[in-house]
Amino acid sequence: MDIGIIGLGLIGGCLGLDFKALGHRVYGVARRSATGEAAIALNIVDQASTDLNLLAPCDIVFICTPIATIVPMVAQLASVLASGTPITDVGSVKAAIVEPASKHWPYFVGGHPMSGKSEAGLAAADPHIFKDRPYVITPIADTDPKAAQLVESLAAQLGSSIYHCTPEDHDRAVAWISHLPVMVSASLIQAALQEPDDKVLTLAQQLASSGFRDTSRVGGGNPELGLMMAQYNQTEVLRALKRYQYEIELTISQVEKSDWEAIAQKLKVTSVGRSQFVSE
Amino acid sequence: MDIGIIGLGLIGGCLGLDFKALGHRVYGVARRSATGEAAIALNIVDQASTDLNLLAPCDIVFICTPIATIVPMVAQLASVLASGTPITDVGSVKAAIVEPASKHWPYFVGGHPMSGKSEAGLAAADPHIFKDRPYVITPIADTDPKAAQLVESLAAQLGSSIYHCTPEDHDRAVAWISHLPVMVSASLIQAALQEPDDKVLTLAQQLASSGFRDTSRVGGGNPELGLMMAQYNQTEVLRALKRYQYEIELTISQVEKSDWEAIAQKLKVTSVGRSQFVSE
Repeated sequence: MDIGIIGLGLIGGCLGLDFKALGHRVYGVARRSATGEAAIALNIVDQASTDLNLLAPCDIVFICTPIATIVPMVAQLASVLASGTPITDVGSVKAAIVEPASKHWPYFVGGHPMSGKSEAGLAAADPHIFKDRPYVITPIADTDPKAAQLVESLAAQLGSSIYHCTPEDHDRAVAWISHLPVMVSASLIQAALQEPDDKVLTLAQQLASSGFRDTSRVGGGNPELGLMMAQYNQTEVLRALKRYQYEIELTISQVEKSDWEAIAQKLKVTSVGRSQFVSE
Repeated sequence: MDIGIIGLGLIGGCLGLDFKALGHRVYGVARRSATGEAAIALNIVDQASTDLNLLAPCDIVFICTPIATIVPMVAQLASVLASGTPITDVGSVKAAIVEPASKHWPYFVGGHPMSGKSEAGLAAADPHIFKDRPYVITPIADTDPKAAQLVESLAAQLGSSIYHCTPEDHDRAVAWISHLPVMVSASLIQAALQEPDDKVLTLAQQLASSGFRDTSRVGGGNPELGLMMAQYNQTEVLRALKRYQYEIELTISQVEKSDWEAIAQKLKVTSVGRSQFVSE
């Protein structure tokens, strides 16, 4: 199959590696020609260009660019691709993308392969990063069923665990497990930095260990990613933040009233509850 | 040197292992005689008993029991030990312990070796867990300088990095880096569990990955530990929680107003700020 990939960063690069290894022919489009040349040298794509017209013969196109550019890219592709060619994306929000993209192109299928690495960029691309990881596909009423089927079959070839849901359910679920944690974690760092006593702040920085390291990790990560989550999943991030704010208020009131029974109960619930999300 | 250890759990066990390896004679007291026997078998102590009188000949005693029992233990030891014998503890809060313990025994020195493992108990004891880790010593005006010196010299033998501060500064610093993270993290789990739509909750549980795993880790840990932190470091935990609550309110208001500039700025500050606490 002829597969187009727009955006040769980490995810685009990993998709190219796997699709080529599976025997597909991969066409890559990047903003800079040097990126395309590197992708050819790294055996990630067969052909590369800075021009979308390279993708004209493709059977399907994966858009792997930042969230803000996905819908404009679909609009541009509409004048390049043969009618009926599926386009899909890998963006980490779906409602803000799938409705407008589908208006430009009825063969658009929202997708979200939930794999990644802390490093960014083509050079960090590894094979098999999608294997046994969730790949969420978010068709809407207007989505062409054959297009959705093709995305699903390629995700299956990557070895992913496939989930189907509406763009709205996707965005609500990832608000809890991905976008809210960024805000929770960033606010922890921000609060600690406000310690007014310099010697206490220095001591805290000297003593910080695994507990602070884990809880602050996603809040100290890539600022652009965190911003895009809030910006393009605003409604669900707000909803999750407000529920979270309530839990913090409740905790404050329980500690203030020395209601240790309630705190103990809460920590028992979260100790069990966490294992329903993650295993270790 | 003859060293007594009361409480043969993880920390007591690790101290015994290292002190014996350093050539000291180690006396262990546990609530159950089976624990003492196991500690002898594991080469953690030379002699063990359930009776504090075993410790009468000791040159120094380390209390490694839960926070709530440290001060009563000092009071009991006062009738067992020779006058002038240093007593120290390993509790993770200091103000609530050091003042009352020092009233019972002027040779009491507050200590907090900041090492640990996720497993608890004697069987999980490993050598060298204190090496290159912080060991905080919190003398007050009444603390006997010779007693403090002896604790420091033993901490140095363990290979720890030694810090001195007041009990209050210790408690304020660990509220930021250890106790607040537990509440922040537990509230994340608690909030996510409140998702009213069952299919979204299930989806969130299926999709949860490294971001949720890291941010929720300490909130899904040992409930007793989390409770004790809040209970015995109430003032500082409240202070940190209220500053944190303000950061969450600020974030909500920025997301509500679509003030992306402010969110971007915040995430840039936290990305740099985190590296002042932890290295990776």
